[in-house]
Amino acid sequence: MLKLHSMQSSGNSYKVRLLLAKLGRPFQLVDVDVLRGENRTPDFLMKNPEGRVPLLELPGGRFLAESNAILFHLAEGTPLLPAEAFSRAEVLRWMFFEQHSHEPAIAAARFWLKLVRGGRELRTHDVDRWMEEGYGALRIMERHLARRPFFVDDRLSIADIALYAHTHVAGEGEFDLATFPALNAWLARVAAAPGHVDIGWRPATARQMVSNI
Amino acid sequence: MLKLHSMQSSGNSYKVRLLLAKLGRPFQLVDVDVLRGENRTPDFLMKNPEGRVPLLELPGGRFLAESNAILFHLAEGTPLLPAEAFSRAEVLRWMFFEQHSHEPAIAAARFWLKLVRGGRELRTHDVDRWMEEGYGALRIMERHLARRPFFVDDRLSIADIALYAHTHVAGEGEFDLATFPALNAWLARVAAAPGHVDIGWRPATARQMVSNI
Repeated sequence: MLKLHSMQSSGNSYKVRLLLAKLGRPFQLVDVDVLRGENRTPDFLMKNPEGRVPLLELPGGRFLAESNAILFHLAEGTPLLPAEAFSRAEVLRWMFFEQHSHEPAIAAARFWLKLVRGGRELRTHDVDRWMEEGYGALRIMERHLARRPFFVDDRLSIADIALYAHTHVAGEGEFDLATFPALNAWLARVAAAPGHVDIGWRPATARQMVSNI
Repeated sequence: MLKLHSMQSSGNSYKVRLLLAKLGRPFQLVDVDVLRGENRTPDFLMKNPEGRVPLLELPGGRFLAESNAILFHLAEGTPLLPAEAFSRAEVLRWMFFEQHSHEPAIAAARFWLKLVRGGRELRTHDVDRWMEEGYGALRIMERHLARRPFFVDDRLSIADIALYAHTHVAGEGEFDLATFPALNAWLARVAAAPGHVDIGWRPATARQMVSNI
């Protein structure tokens, strides 16, 4: 069975849980609490030298890192990844946008402002940069969605799943989405699609957190 | 014919030129000088609302943004993108690493320190962050390459091309690569592979810069 090393509050981990739920693929969830440093243990660093979640463990002991690479791999051959070459390229285009121009600002703001809640690492110039870059990314999304129901080919794909994960909780990073009507309509559309689960959802096969055993 | 909107000194643009040269695919090069703001003209923003290069223009007037999405699209069906599912996922894993954890630090340092050469936008805390994150990415690469000739499947792929583009000029962003032996051996290996061209190479079909016409 697939095993997903994941942090429940992480948007990048949620992407993969959401896709697996939609696909109806059984998987074992292994909690890795980054806030407690469980991603820096020698055991976890053997699995992923970068010390990041999500991490997909495939049968046979192979590991795949990077949330969007995991999405692409799992969605191959399903309706959530188009078969046509240019459409596939467009899905990747939005997934690279997400990791380059969206997640580093929008997820970082939520991580430090909501999950870690400040601390000495949080600096004003970082918050200013996240706001500038994050709103820039949201404007690009708003403009694209003003004329389309979903990011590619007028139907839900892993591009939407990748972008939904951090956008739907952007408010927790103090982004105000009130002036982005097309983006809000898209958020509602994604949440209404068949098989949707929210960020708190866990499969029946979830394993207790290692530190609680 | 394919048309590539590109900046000659841009590592992200170089990736695509290098791949097209290796594949022997003819293309027209259109220079877009970001330093002169040619990416912010109304005409260019119609083509790519993000105002970024590289931008691939396909026959029929379709546009594809994001350097790594362009690489994946062009390499499909060629030896530079493996056919096996897990290998393809690993190629994407390293390409997402490049755009998330490598390029934002290593390319930014070179852009501001070498190409723009400072200015009021350059702040010490940005340089400190690029150094910390950039060296972190280089250490991940060094560790991976210590046991392998290339990033995936022991042969050159678009994962290597994506990572080579900014790494081989990291010194221009004041990164010191002297203590990364495996990474240096890999740089030499990529440069020695068949069909290699350097960052200054231009196809015969290059168009003069718009601002010089």
